[in-house]
Amino acid sequence: MTSTPPPPLPMVVPTQDLPARVRIHEVGARDGLQNEKRAVPTEVKAEFIHRLARSGLTTIEATSFVHPKWVPQLADAEDLFPLVQDIEGVHLPVLVPNARGLDRALALGAHRVAVFASATESFAKANLNRTVAESLAVFEPVVARAKEHRAHVRGYLSMCFGDPWEGPVPVHQVVSVAKALLDMGCDELSLGDTIGVATPGHVQTLLSELNEEGVPTNVIGVHFHDTYGQALANTLAALQHGVTTVDASAGGLGGCPYAKSATGNLATEDLVWMLRGLGIETGVDLGRLTDTSRWMAGHLGRPSPSRTVSALAQPPQEQ
Amino acid sequence: MTSTPPPPLPMVVPTQDLPARVRIHEVGARDGLQNEKRAVPTEVKAEFIHRLARSGLTTIEATSFVHPKWVPQLADAEDLFPLVQDIEGVHLPVLVPNARGLDRALALGAHRVAVFASATESFAKANLNRTVAESLAVFEPVVARAKEHRAHVRGYLSMCFGDPWEGPVPVHQVVSVAKALLDMGCDELSLGDTIGVATPGHVQTLLSELNEEGVPTNVIGVHFHDTYGQALANTLAALQHGVTTVDASAGGLGGCPYAKSATGNLATEDLVWMLRGLGIETGVDLGRLTDTSRWMAGHLGRPSPSRTVSALAQPPQEQ
Repeated sequence: MTSTPPPPLPMVVPTQDLPARVRIHEVGARDGLQNEKRAVPTEVKAEFIHRLARSGLTTIEATSFVHPKWVPQLADAEDLFPLVQDIEGVHLPVLVPNARGLDRALALGAHRVAVFASATESFAKANLNRTVAESLAVFEPVVARAKEHRAHVRGYLSMCFGDPWEGPVPVHQVVSVAKALLDMGCDELSLGDTIGVATPGHVQTLLSELNEEGVPTNVIGVHFHDTYGQALANTLAALQHGVTTVDASAGGLGGCPYAKSATGNLATEDLVWMLRGLGIETGVDLGRLTDTSRWMAGHLGRPSPSRTVSALAQPPQEQ
Repeated sequence: MTSTPPPPLPMVVPTQDLPARVRIHEVGARDGLQNEKRAVPTEVKAEFIHRLARSGLTTIEATSFVHPKWVPQLADAEDLFPLVQDIEGVHLPVLVPNARGLDRALALGAHRVAVFASATESFAKANLNRTVAESLAVFEPVVARAKEHRAHVRGYLSMCFGDPWEGPVPVHQVVSVAKALLDMGCDELSLGDTIGVATPGHVQTLLSELNEEGVPTNVIGVHFHDTYGQALANTLAALQHGVTTVDASAGGLGGCPYAKSATGNLATEDLVWMLRGLGIETGVDLGRLTDTSRWMAGHLGRPSPSRTVSALAQPPQEQ
């Protein structure tokens, strides 16, 4: 063989009964970096977000207005947000854990905020130091005030499939908290498989049950972790159910501290590879995104856990 | 929190329109170990296969009767096969590249053999140093002679989706070689995504086209590589089409030398996790299998690339 092999790309095979377009909710800058031991300089975070936007992502969660004592990695939210908030055509939601966090976000002109609830009592206690009911009571005025300011509100719902203390999570329990979040005014939900235990039938069962209880698919996003390698198969199951919002993290940044695996969030690149092959539009340039993840991996001092980032870093060898 | 968290396991959610049972064709001992730089001692290979059998796997590809010059890692086939061939209730197919390999396998009493064809001219040339037609002409008398000895014959078909030199592989090209393998007497096919580029719609399109051309689903196995993280999503797509034979490699052993990623075959553990969650029977004990992969990783001196093996190695942390 003498010719240089072409760069690998999936063959595009448009597939019936799947959405024509998917909106990727990129969480690397927030969910990813909040789990980094080493603090990332504010200007690097800003550059990361600008690069993600140039790769074609249109919803990029920027940071969290949580108390610096709890998440020191994101203590620079006030400095970071003004450096990115004016990127044209890009939504930049921020996490707000409580009224104080919302005030800080609104003061900077945030248009999109997110609250973070739990489907299980054990995780609510561990993560929020409240019962599920108490945490919902805290969020209710936060969501109301955000809506008064015409902010778009996302409701994260974690431990939707399994919980490290409680094991499998009953579907009705998830439906109950999901409905409470929507009832208080959340515009969309993100169903989190925080410890990565879900499988495709479980995903479709939860989505069907939500629909039956009056929650339409178009307000539902899915947020899978790849702890057991299931994230992309679960995403396929969600797409087959009609879900069009998928959370992912550039380069697979992030992890769940409750399941100490090397892997965390579904990698955006692995997701884009599949969506591209399925003929589903995302607007994302895979090469630019992979370059961005490699650049960030350089700053973090370790390789990306994304299979696609790793594979595209090494051009195929000739014989 | 004071109680010890339970070990994580997927919730079993039986799912409509999927097979009740899947036969896993375990390839770690052959496809996995043939890619290892370091030669594994024969007795370790035998112990590996016995452990895989004790974990509940019933089809374990044992070795390859290829010329030692080409695959020195498997040069001990004659010594290894007698150490494992009598495991009760377990099929132990072996790869035979040509008439000489078949003779060696039959002389030892092998009941199941496999030939290894390519869907593309470039890979046939690179791997077999023949055209596709020439390689099929070599296999024809091999398969005929195996059938005379009442051996079960599997036909591997590699590069079914993409090829590192040719890019996307036309579906009709795969169908043509698949039919030739069945026409010469192969009992089953294994459709290989050797460089891991396939996506779920591509998988279903190829399966549909094979059916339309008279190839029934019950003779088709799928063999996915996780180079771009797509292997399990592609497996789900194949299950949804009715496929009930899935190739996988314990601990994700193996890789494709033409796509130098850290990852190779679909990890059996990640597959078993999904199948268990879907309520699909495999007969495999996930804990025993994971222990076996960790034991083998110790011999190889590096961690398993399987997400599930990695996650189960680290019990969840208490808060």
